[in-house]
Amino acid sequence: MIVEGLVTTLSPEGALNVAPMGPKIPADLGMGTFVLRPYRTSTTYRNLKAGGAGVFHVTDEVGLLARTAIGATVDPPPDTLPAKAVAGRILADACRYYEFRPIVIDDADERTTILVETVAEGRLRDFLGFNRARHAVVEAAILATRTAFLPVAEILDEFRKLSIIVDKTGGVAEREAFDLLLAHVREAAGREASGS
Amino acid sequence: MIVEGLVTTLSPEGALNVAPMGPKIPADLGMGTFVLRPYRTSTTYRNLKAGGAGVFHVTDEVGLLARTAIGATVDPPPDTLPAKAVAGRILADACRYYEFRPIVIDDADERTTILVETVAEGRLRDFLGFNRARHAVVEAAILATRTAFLPVAEILDEFRKLSIIVDKTGGVAEREAFDLLLAHVREAAGREASGS
Repeated sequence: MIVEGLVTTLSPEGALNVAPMGPKIPADLGMGTFVLRPYRTSTTYRNLKAGGAGVFHVTDEVGLLARTAIGATVDPPPDTLPAKAVAGRILADACRYYEFRPIVIDDADERTTILVETVAEGRLRDFLGFNRARHAVVEAAILATRTAFLPVAEILDEFRKLSIIVDKTGGVAEREAFDLLLAHVREAAGREASGS
Repeated sequence: MIVEGLVTTLSPEGALNVAPMGPKIPADLGMGTFVLRPYRTSTTYRNLKAGGAGVFHVTDEVGLLARTAIGATVDPPPDTLPAKAVAGRILADACRYYEFRPIVIDDADERTTILVETVAEGRLRDFLGFNRARHAVVEAAILATRTAFLPVAEILDEFRKLSIIVDKTGGVAEREAFDLLLAHVREAAGREASGS
């Protein structure tokens, strides 16, 4: 199973990085190993390569997911707690977290393969459940990162359908996250139209 | 927020009924009141109208959700536990449950409005998290109940897109649930083509 969540890492200087990631994990998401596949250009890769550890979070809060997906500023930074077993930070608003250490880093390809081992885990609160609006934001966030590969008209067409679901089944936070992503896609469309 | 889940009720004779439902609930889904909107033709409505109580479940198990959405047989019946505060059954494989009693039943319209009060709640296990395949099955289940209102070609077109997500991010259970829904839509398409 692939679970879309958030990974926090720290730079050697201690700067927090939050990145969306969808690792393939055992269905019970318990202690064990799993695989991350960050790009070599990503901060997550650089921090892990520099010897750092990280924390994978299961969350139902789509605002942070949307922001980090498109590289938008997260200001103020999200509340965090110190990890217990690694030098890392836990997102205070997450549902569950899995502190991990890299075991093998294979960075021969542009997209790296990093096998990690869970060394501590915990739960902070329940995941809401199947909410169509939040999932529509997840799909929109994935689409918003593909403006370089997919025709913008096609992306906007999907956004129109997702927008209806967000309005029907979500609240203010879901609408805000969705609108942020929509603005990002429209900006990409503008750049495309102007040929830059 | 609307959370898609499952409601169990018992008939006056004690027969278990499981139905998908998406009540509007407070974001924390805690004790309190919420609204169900079953159709007058539904077993859920009849059981509640007859004086019965029920249990709303948050679940991430899409097989049962898919089956009950299209009225397919659930055989063997799902494992259940006795509810604590009402005469009802708790789905053993659910993540969390909310035992409820109807307070007001407004059945003037074909689609009824039933205000219920949570009288007990509990958690059995964690909800996996954002898994695109499971959510694709939820969307497919909703589409599959709309074959009478939407052009079947349009539904099948959406199914083609959802199918890719199920294969990429899900497991065997998600594929099976999706295929069941797809067969249901194709059957409806066949009936439509033959004019029956």
